[in-house]
Amino acid sequence: MIRKEKIEKLKVIIEELKTIKVIKRNIKQENKFLQSEAYYFKLNNGKIISREKLIKGDGNGSAAIIMPVVNNEVLTVIEPRVFTNLTVGIGFPAGYIENNENPKDGALRELKEETGYIAQNLIHLDSFYQDEGCSEALNHIFLALNCKKVCEQSLDKDEIIKYMLFNYEELLELEQMGYIKGCNSKLALEKSKTYMKGSIK
Amino acid sequence: MIRKEKIEKLKVIIEELKTIKVIKRNIKQENKFLQSEAYYFKLNNGKIISREKLIKGDGNGSAAIIMPVVNNEVLTVIEPRVFTNLTVGIGFPAGYIENNENPKDGALRELKEETGYIAQNLIHLDSFYQDEGCSEALNHIFLALNCKKVCEQSLDKDEIIKYMLFNYEELLELEQMGYIKGCNSKLALEKSKTYMKGSIK
Repeated sequence: MIRKEKIEKLKVIIEELKTIKVIKRNIKQENKFLQSEAYYFKLNNGKIISREKLIKGDGNGSAAIIMPVVNNEVLTVIEPRVFTNLTVGIGFPAGYIENNENPKDGALRELKEETGYIAQNLIHLDSFYQDEGCSEALNHIFLALNCKKVCEQSLDKDEIIKYMLFNYEELLELEQMGYIKGCNSKLALEKSKTYMKGSIK
Repeated sequence: MIRKEKIEKLKVIIEELKTIKVIKRNIKQENKFLQSEAYYFKLNNGKIISREKLIKGDGNGSAAIIMPVVNNEVLTVIEPRVFTNLTVGIGFPAGYIENNENPKDGALRELKEETGYIAQNLIHLDSFYQDEGCSEALNHIFLALNCKKVCEQSLDKDEIIKYMLFNYEELLELEQMGYIKGCNSKLALEKSKTYMKGSIK
């Protein structure tokens, strides 16, 4: 069972980060972060098909997802997820990999920026396409071992990220309860299962 | 070990569906399938943040993913995934849920359209957000039991879908080999594991 003080603290954070008002903005298409491009593709069988590709900023949206292990617990992040039912999401540190950055460096950078923690070593668990029909985004899941806090968070203007430690069983409970609901965090939970069940409680 | 005739047939299909040429199209923004909208959100703690939302056609992109069980095998689909390294993807039938359609009906419709199979009953395995930072898309995974072929495929102009039967162990091998690489299919494989290990080989 999830520790009482943990679920209570989580609920306070969720309450704090909930969306209470939405205002639509009119910004010019060329200033948007989410863009798309259209293409024809000729296949080996001679057929021609038409597809659109999602662009995020100046990249393809590939992300690194990090499961940071601190002693025998996992560091989770809680942040506004304004388009979901709860309007707040619980998951693992994650962020877009910059152009010309390798996934491991992106993972370490995002972990430090979002939480102020660094990792002693990273284990690559899996890679997957987030939306293979219309995006090049290839996401990478890393287990980060022996993490420790070395500095404050370093967040962008529009980023609000709280963090908390849970053990692995509590994370599975949080998923069951519907708090962890993003595909990145769900796949990270699955792909780390063998490791987590063996090494930390 | 995956059956030799299965992997050979799969490789022939992959070869056939590979992209050999890409041509960029100039279409007007308003005609695109992938669109975005910008918003401000006021949070309960008083902060205001800015976010963009991905729109797909006239919906939010929520999809149904179906793992169709036929005797003791699972029906997989092979289709062009032009933005991936292989340019072809192997996974499970899936498609966007229409506005005012419930996820189960969407799952049954997509299964029939993409493969010509119908299911005797559907079991809901999980639901997850595909890209919780910038999309409302909530995807639903269903196990479809006692499926049988009743008609031909009914595909859109730009859809090319081949299908093949594999057993569950072969699917895990295909994932290991890097053929199954989309988050929808990977999560379906994980969330059906308990059922699959128990009931079909």
